[in-house]
Amino acid sequence: MERRDFLKKTGMAAAAVAGTAISAPSVLAKEKTYRWKMVTTWPPNLPVFQTGAERFAKRVEEISGGRLKIKVFAGGELVPPLGVFDAVSQGTVQAGSGASYYWAGKTPAAQWFTTVPFGLNAQGINAWFYSGGGLKLWEEVYAPFNLVPRPQGNSGVQMGGWFRKKMNTIADYKGLKMRIPGLGGKVISKAGGTVVLLPGGEIFTSLERGVIDATEWVGPMHDLRMGFYKAAKYYYYPGWHEPGTCLEVMFNKKAYDSLPKDLQAIVDAAAMETNMWSLSQFEAGNGAALQELITKHKVELIRFPDDLLDALRKLTKETLEEEADKDKMSRKVHEAFKKFKEQVGIWGSVSENAYYNVIADKFSLKG
Amino acid sequence: MERRDFLKKTGMAAAAVAGTAISAPSVLAKEKTYRWKMVTTWPPNLPVFQTGAERFAKRVEEISGGRLKIKVFAGGELVPPLGVFDAVSQGTVQAGSGASYYWAGKTPAAQWFTTVPFGLNAQGINAWFYSGGGLKLWEEVYAPFNLVPRPQGNSGVQMGGWFRKKMNTIADYKGLKMRIPGLGGKVISKAGGTVVLLPGGEIFTSLERGVIDATEWVGPMHDLRMGFYKAAKYYYYPGWHEPGTCLEVMFNKKAYDSLPKDLQAIVDAAAMETNMWSLSQFEAGNGAALQELITKHKVELIRFPDDLLDALRKLTKETLEEEADKDKMSRKVHEAFKKFKEQVGIWGSVSENAYYNVIADKFSLKG
Repeated sequence: MERRDFLKKTGMAAAAVAGTAISAPSVLAKEKTYRWKMVTTWPPNLPVFQTGAERFAKRVEEISGGRLKIKVFAGGELVPPLGVFDAVSQGTVQAGSGASYYWAGKTPAAQWFTTVPFGLNAQGINAWFYSGGGLKLWEEVYAPFNLVPRPQGNSGVQMGGWFRKKMNTIADYKGLKMRIPGLGGKVISKAGGTVVLLPGGEIFTSLERGVIDATEWVGPMHDLRMGFYKAAKYYYYPGWHEPGTCLEVMFNKKAYDSLPKDLQAIVDAAAMETNMWSLSQFEAGNGAALQELITKHKVELIRFPDDLLDALRKLTKETLEEEADKDKMSRKVHEAFKKFKEQVGIWGSVSENAYYNVIADKFSLKG
Repeated sequence: MERRDFLKKTGMAAAAVAGTAISAPSVLAKEKTYRWKMVTTWPPNLPVFQTGAERFAKRVEEISGGRLKIKVFAGGELVPPLGVFDAVSQGTVQAGSGASYYWAGKTPAAQWFTTVPFGLNAQGINAWFYSGGGLKLWEEVYAPFNLVPRPQGNSGVQMGGWFRKKMNTIADYKGLKMRIPGLGGKVISKAGGTVVLLPGGEIFTSLERGVIDATEWVGPMHDLRMGFYKAAKYYYYPGWHEPGTCLEVMFNKKAYDSLPKDLQAIVDAAAMETNMWSLSQFEAGNGAALQELITKHKVELIRFPDDLLDALRKLTKETLEEEADKDKMSRKVHEAFKKFKEQVGIWGSVSENAYYNVIADKFSLKG
């Protein structure tokens, strides 16, 4: 039996309690069933992105024993994908899922909480959020919009993208028409490329017909599903522009604050748990998909040349400084991000990086 | 007001309910406050290890709104550190926290769920647990002992250890007295070293007096706290023997099964959330501590030479095959682990590994 049924059916009992010295309203509030709506920026069924948002909602219901039920709507089902921020901010719905860099137009500082080109990877950005003050800063950035953000997923290092021609030097970006959003797109513009923004459903056809010369998407699991290997020959790595993309869930502050403390703890736990789950899904799924791309579809993987990466890194530094100059909060976030990156960077070089290099020859694509 | 107070104080109301057609006992069971004891293998206050177990318990209480309270006892406070497995298995207490490789004597297959030399890093082993069938296998290994395991933390790649002399070739392990537990210790034995097992409190003095020539511990944050830099000159990396050490929480199966479904979901969520939290704590804390070791204590960091690592890897392969031959379950787990490592290995080489190498020069210790 559900708690709410218990309360409904024991209306008499509750009424009896209300007549005593016991604070009945708070008891009833605690036992109340909350029904929330959550809108996302993702297409229906998009693996890990949309299914991750749905997993989050399912877990909230399980963990709360049905006291908080969240109905999830994919992008466009209730509000347009890029209407998520406003819908949650205005309280039209209680929750939303997306990526903070979509909201750069609302507040430029939001961009740092998704991913920064040449910035922190998944392990690093999670450490920043949970143990380095990053989440607190994110809350500060979203507070003026009545929003409470939580990390809810991470893609890990993405792939560099699909190109119809080989990329040898930074000059090859001149005139290149590429689908690439966010800060990475700004860097490509600076390199002389033309950034094209396309809905997911139009990318494949545009690439196949040469309307665009290149596109980045996510990683092997999602790229395989899109069939890009049929439209472009070269698959570049690593994804310098999205080294650990964080997916967000955000709550309308009034809705979040109106929850009893234990339900607040429950949505926090389900978000953090889903963050861990999603990185695991990406890691396992990308591993299997990459093997299929290489062995079955004979895709040619190419590492971006060092000189090209160095040039992109220089342009990234300029781009980040320009973005940080847009307002005080962006500067504050940028400086905090840089400081934390420095703190974990040296450690990363002797731990994960050194270890990956030790096991690398075993898994070398050339091996 | 706590739910249990509500029920106690409304005994009359509950009695009234019991007299109706409503299934009162199930309602009462759901609203019951559970009080559990959890014993750990860790010393009191050991950062992230013991404090992680305590965080887990605290979060269970918060998320459950006080319906499940877990009192945590450090190693030796209620049962000896290595008595944790039996205490939980026999139901003396309901929960325990430690590392599965301590239970190799109970069931050799347990070793694969902590960490495997030259095996998966944190991102990889978590993907194995949550998205690759690893946790299901772990449950299978613990089931005969009435135990339900959950990952509850991960150290990330550890350091290789502190040595009083330089390690140039595999021959340097001959006669070397080193404190190193688990599978890594078995490999060092095979290399001709003498593996010494010491309680945490005796390691520093033994190293300082030359009773042992080397020790591994955890990483910069914990090693700094132990003061090893005062007793040994060379700090080696990477920790090939513990590339992503998983900390466990385990529940007595009868106790776990007796919880209502939502409380089961709550302990699962708190464990998964604490797993994410702990890796973040290690990442942030190790970054800060490593900088202190280098700049303040002038510690010399040295990468193990390639040839030495290759020799250790060969001995590791032999060791793992011998351990896998011990029983059917060990063989099953070993084969599953190897297969998953292969699946994510190629992906790791073009994602995290390639990305770390791109940003490495920025953070190079030589830079």
